[in-house]
Amino acid sequence: MAATLLSALLVEILIPVAALIGMVFALIQWFLVSRVSVGGGQASINNGYDQSLLDDEEGYDDAEAVALCAEIQNAISEGAESFLITEYQYLGIFMAVFSVFIFLFLGSVGGFSTKWVSCKANPSELCAPPLANALFSTVAFILGALTSTLSGYLGMKIATYANARTTLEARKGVGEAFIVAFRAGSVMGFLLAANGLIVLFIAIVLFKLYYGNDWTGLYESIAGYGLGGSSVALFGRVGGGIYTKAADVGADLVGKVERNIPEDDPRNPAVIADNVGDNVGDIAGMGADLFGSFAESSCAALVVSSISSFGADRDFVAMSFPLLISSAGIVVCLITTIFATDLFVIKSVKEIEPSLKRQLVISTVLMTLAIAAVCYLALPSTFTINVVGHQPKVVKNWKLFFCVGSGLWAGLIIGPVRDVADSCRTGAATNVIFGLALGYKSVIIPVLAIAVAIFLSFSLAAMYGIAVAALGMLSTLATGLAIDAYGPISDNAGGIAEMAGMPHKVRERTDALDAAGNTTAAIGKGFAIGSAALVSLALFGAFVSRAGIAVVDVIQPKEFVGLIVGAMLPYWFSAMTMKSVGKAALAMVEEVRRQFNTIPGLMEGTVKPDYKRCVKISTDASLREMIPPGALVMLTPLIVGTLFGSSTLAGLLAGALVSGVQIAISASNTGGAWDNAKKYIEAGASDHARSLGPKGSDAHKAAVIGDTVGDPLKDTSGPSLNILIKLMAVESLVFAPFFAAHGGIFFKWLNI
Amino acid sequence: MAATLLSALLVEILIPVAALIGMVFALIQWFLVSRVSVGGGQASINNGYDQSLLDDEEGYDDAEAVALCAEIQNAISEGAESFLITEYQYLGIFMAVFSVFIFLFLGSVGGFSTKWVSCKANPSELCAPPLANALFSTVAFILGALTSTLSGYLGMKIATYANARTTLEARKGVGEAFIVAFRAGSVMGFLLAANGLIVLFIAIVLFKLYYGNDWTGLYESIAGYGLGGSSVALFGRVGGGIYTKAADVGADLVGKVERNIPEDDPRNPAVIADNVGDNVGDIAGMGADLFGSFAESSCAALVVSSISSFGADRDFVAMSFPLLISSAGIVVCLITTIFATDLFVIKSVKEIEPSLKRQLVISTVLMTLAIAAVCYLALPSTFTINVVGHQPKVVKNWKLFFCVGSGLWAGLIIGPVRDVADSCRTGAATNVIFGLALGYKSVIIPVLAIAVAIFLSFSLAAMYGIAVAALGMLSTLATGLAIDAYGPISDNAGGIAEMAGMPHKVRERTDALDAAGNTTAAIGKGFAIGSAALVSLALFGAFVSRAGIAVVDVIQPKEFVGLIVGAMLPYWFSAMTMKSVGKAALAMVEEVRRQFNTIPGLMEGTVKPDYKRCVKISTDASLREMIPPGALVMLTPLIVGTLFGSSTLAGLLAGALVSGVQIAISASNTGGAWDNAKKYIEAGASDHARSLGPKGSDAHKAAVIGDTVGDPLKDTSGPSLNILIKLMAVESLVFAPFFAAHGGIFFKWLNI
Repeated sequence: MAATLLSALLVEILIPVAALIGMVFALIQWFLVSRVSVGGGQASINNGYDQSLLDDEEGYDDAEAVALCAEIQNAISEGAESFLITEYQYLGIFMAVFSVFIFLFLGSVGGFSTKWVSCKANPSELCAPPLANALFSTVAFILGALTSTLSGYLGMKIATYANARTTLEARKGVGEAFIVAFRAGSVMGFLLAANGLIVLFIAIVLFKLYYGNDWTGLYESIAGYGLGGSSVALFGRVGGGIYTKAADVGADLVGKVERNIPEDDPRNPAVIADNVGDNVGDIAGMGADLFGSFAESSCAALVVSSISSFGADRDFVAMSFPLLISSAGIVVCLITTIFATDLFVIKSVKEIEPSLKRQLVISTVLMTLAIAAVCYLALPSTFTINVVGHQPKVVKNWKLFFCVGSGLWAGLIIGPVRDVADSCRTGAATNVIFGLALGYKSVIIPVLAIAVAIFLSFSLAAMYGIAVAALGMLSTLATGLAIDAYGPISDNAGGIAEMAGMPHKVRERTDALDAAGNTTAAIGKGFAIGSAALVSLALFGAFVSRAGIAVVDVIQPKEFVGLIVGAMLPYWFSAMTMKSVGKAALAMVEEVRRQFNTIPGLMEGTVKPDYKRCVKISTDASLREMIPPGALVMLTPLIVGTLFGSSTLAGLLAGALVSGVQIAISASNTGGAWDNAKKYIEAGASDHARSLGPKGSDAHKAAVIGDTVGDPLKDTSGPSLNILIKLMAVESLVFAPFFAAHGGIFFKWLNI
Repeated sequence: MAATLLSALLVEILIPVAALIGMVFALIQWFLVSRVSVGGGQASINNGYDQSLLDDEEGYDDAEAVALCAEIQNAISEGAESFLITEYQYLGIFMAVFSVFIFLFLGSVGGFSTKWVSCKANPSELCAPPLANALFSTVAFILGALTSTLSGYLGMKIATYANARTTLEARKGVGEAFIVAFRAGSVMGFLLAANGLIVLFIAIVLFKLYYGNDWTGLYESIAGYGLGGSSVALFGRVGGGIYTKAADVGADLVGKVERNIPEDDPRNPAVIADNVGDNVGDIAGMGADLFGSFAESSCAALVVSSISSFGADRDFVAMSFPLLISSAGIVVCLITTIFATDLFVIKSVKEIEPSLKRQLVISTVLMTLAIAAVCYLALPSTFTINVVGHQPKVVKNWKLFFCVGSGLWAGLIIGPVRDVADSCRTGAATNVIFGLALGYKSVIIPVLAIAVAIFLSFSLAAMYGIAVAALGMLSTLATGLAIDAYGPISDNAGGIAEMAGMPHKVRERTDALDAAGNTTAAIGKGFAIGSAALVSLALFGAFVSRAGIAVVDVIQPKEFVGLIVGAMLPYWFSAMTMKSVGKAALAMVEEVRRQFNTIPGLMEGTVKPDYKRCVKISTDASLREMIPPGALVMLTPLIVGTLFGSSTLAGLLAGALVSGVQIAISASNTGGAWDNAKKYIEAGASDHARSLGPKGSDAHKAAVIGDTVGDPLKDTSGPSLNILIKLMAVESLVFAPFFAAHGGIFFKWLNI
């Protein structure tokens, strides 16, 4: 057994300490955000900004506007909370049912026996009974689901806590507002990264008390953690995505197109639902998604290494390599955040976007050093990775540096191609064609970047290499999430400014924050997709290992049919989610129209609309509509594995992965391009843009159509596909022993 | 050696006789079409229809209108001919260069040696030198390219010959017009099927004179025929697709949206280009595409069986099984056509669509019987199919019946889901979202049908099963093509009626013909895609056989990277073609606007527009823009095979296949759904449709936007993807010996 420089004890201290540091840092950021008072004493409101800035707005009453901000914030927060609570009730039922599934399916593998059995890899040792694996997998599943739920909920909480505060700080200046929004994003980023790490670590430590020396059983059970995290993320992404886009599309189509009132106008009945949507979709959904990626890539790495020399040698330090990478990531992100919040001060609008991008670059450079250190300290100089049906792969520790690093740097490259926005500026109707073309084109660079990372890490360290490459990409998660969450918070801040009737200058500043957020949100989406691709492949590798599949040969009928049907699934899934958004948006359009037509004084602004009905429509629609796509994703691996066996399922996973990645990227970027084209015309910042505008012109109407189609593409279907590919893979991994034991009954019946 | 019931001599008679019958039948149909006189004596014009039908149109002069028809027909025919001639000049250069490539690459395999070598499979026999294989492959390539060119050209000729004749017959009645258009379609269908078969047969017979007993070398060289056919189809589909959509989008955006004049109005400068486009894109492009599928599936089947027991036993009858299936198909289609043209008479508009669909059903049922007969007569009762690296597969002749039959019946199922049109009727802007969703959804059934056919034929007879399943789907090619070609001919007939100022009733009839054609064109597209999927897989199988690859294991880095990059290629390719259409359409929009703005009297109809400039814009744009996507498809296999070797290339082909099929189907159906939504509003046939209309309403404008985006999807990108997946596979097959000998230099250099 090769020695590592770190001791097991030190590892057991370092990991929780890193998580703790992350949490404390998150709390400090929260405290700093909370110092901006909403609706508190007069002192805190008026202090620190130049009253004259606001005085040029006629009839503007600052105290009244601040009170209104607080009121709107409450409405958004309540709407978001009530939606999430309802969603979590549905999730609770799902989790209960699925827990029973997991327990029964996995328990049935050994006929519910409670006897320890001799291990497959080493028959002289004893391994835990399948029933124990079933039980612990179920527990891990529940832990993952709860952690994911908590992550999404906390993210929503801090976002709805910070949005009005960002609006108020925008009275002082764009830099001040930026800091509040960014700090709030950091709270979410660090809480999520730290929570995910500490729960996983505690689970491993506790499970070990039972499993003792059966590390394979231990880490395979831990895989349930990834499944739990991703299941919640599925419903979060799909439900949240439908919610936010139904509200957004409905609000825009009636408010902006038919009634010609501005976005976020308080007269629009769907405006609160729209702002709630940003928090439940873009914040809670995104948080759950990335938590899922983190949990799954950790689990994939642990499963693969548990059956390799780390597991065989009982090398706890090396086994903990994935967790140590994540621990180092928290510290690196902490240092990076201080750059943004304390070292560089944002003074003008133009600095926001470069500043956010600089965050990514700084964290990537620092993380590269940290990875080198962890590889040097936590890995033996040489070790082996087992590959079913092949010779074990002998790996040197420096090779893992390149694996993790390739994922990390691929993440930086995947960010969307900037010229998408510019190329959309050619004209009216044809820009919709160009948007589609650009979305397709935007697939090339990310896929090549992912392909290089995969080839490198796959060649260097087989499936373990892929898993740690995914972890590398996710190691700067806290920073990535902070940047992501910053976008919707700024978007909300702008909405609140408009609704509260804040002065024009405040709205201008929040708009600038929002515009930067839109660009960086695209980076966040790239991250989410890229990591999903790597994670899925790692899980796929762990699945074939666990299922004992040596070869997934696509020139065999079972595998090929799996491959082509798998490649079809993302289309089926997207069809469902797109149609759901369309249906929900139609319902919203009708309700908004009804209110405008039947409530006297609404257009004049003398009577308030019935916001709650719109919130209810979005809530009901998203909860109802998230079930069919959810069922498609959750049931497909179970049905295919049970009826057609592991080989077909392996083909299916590969097909869904390589096809889903492309649609996810192109959908996100096509939607983004159409969004940008619309914004370009609306902003009218150049002669060309003015020649296409103003609002209400044919070109603008065409752009609004494009944006409307793009909305569900970029915020519902696209991001949900990440979960599709990851979740099917992790589910297959968890149920692998069942499929190996009882799967393929249709082919068995046909005797093929 | 198991005996077959047919003798070799009989086979050598039957195949050319079947081809001859097809040709004679095509000529008879042509003769029948030619009996409708255009601009001839008064007798033939006025005869056979009720003059009173036309008299209610005020100021209508029949003789003048007929003369105008002849004139327009000439303009369309000249435009189409001039485009194709120019396109073929480009193609000529490409073919010359690529012929040299093939010769040099394949000749280099054996160091340009002219000595016969001992065969790999059976060292006691002598096989032709690689230089001879290089030469004959090049000759086969040129033959395939010429046959494909001829097929496309003849199709265009008959279509532009029949369009005005269809218009004139529409004065008599809808049934008469239908017969002319359908007969013209049949001419193309039968000529193409017969030509393809006879040239292939002659090439085999002549090549055999040199190859003698080296059947493996013989049939591997023949594979060049498929490559030639598909190369021409690539440029035909892409160039023709860009041409037709640039003209269509340009004509619609200015004429219909900005100037509010009807479709095909003679005042629109792009109207001739639009009608030319139907002939060069939908007719010549589609013909070349399906000819390519036929040639490639035949070649794939021949390559696989030449290295199996048919080849080893020198069983010429069994070897000719693919050609016999196609021969039987010609006879079956002939009988089927007589049903349409002579047994059932179309009396009303409603009967057209069922009649066309009935054609498909009749030909499928009859063909099923024919397949059974051919399997019984031409196959030994038991034979073996060799699979590299595996035990040879022992196959009984009745199993091949199910292989061919599964392809045949899958072709019938793949036709598009009809409710696409209905579901688009919900509203204005959201229908664009629904259209996208429906396009995605429309993938499910065809992919499942293809998957079942693949699984069945793959399991029963390995890759040979897939190849003959593809042949099964294509066996009713003559009927399928007739139905396909009928659509654009009717479309043109309608255009000519409008331009010639024919009475309203005539236009109504041609519109009805056109509407039926739109639905059946979707069936044709399904055919083209479905057969492309099967053909590509068969070629993929032939490629791995020829390259000596036993396993394409996607849990290996080289293969997986190939898979994910391959799945990306259809997106890259679509981005190119979509952008090309957008650019060309923009140029067309500007020219049409310029003419409307600068030519006095154009809108009033007193001055003719400059049609030729628009024709030139479409021609130049399509020829310029077809080169980059063409290069992507042609160069990718060469580069990947040379740098990364056969394993990565195999992964790439699998990825492109499973991903490309989905985009091709969804693009076609999304475009179709948007087209239908627009037509629905324009027709105003229901209360709901009228509530959305009239033309120029917001809902209608949104529908026009959708249709504009859908046009390049359904008529350029979607259909071109068929070629992408087939062509990369057949090119890999032809170059397989080169990659096996010299490929993978990058990995060799890296020493992986």
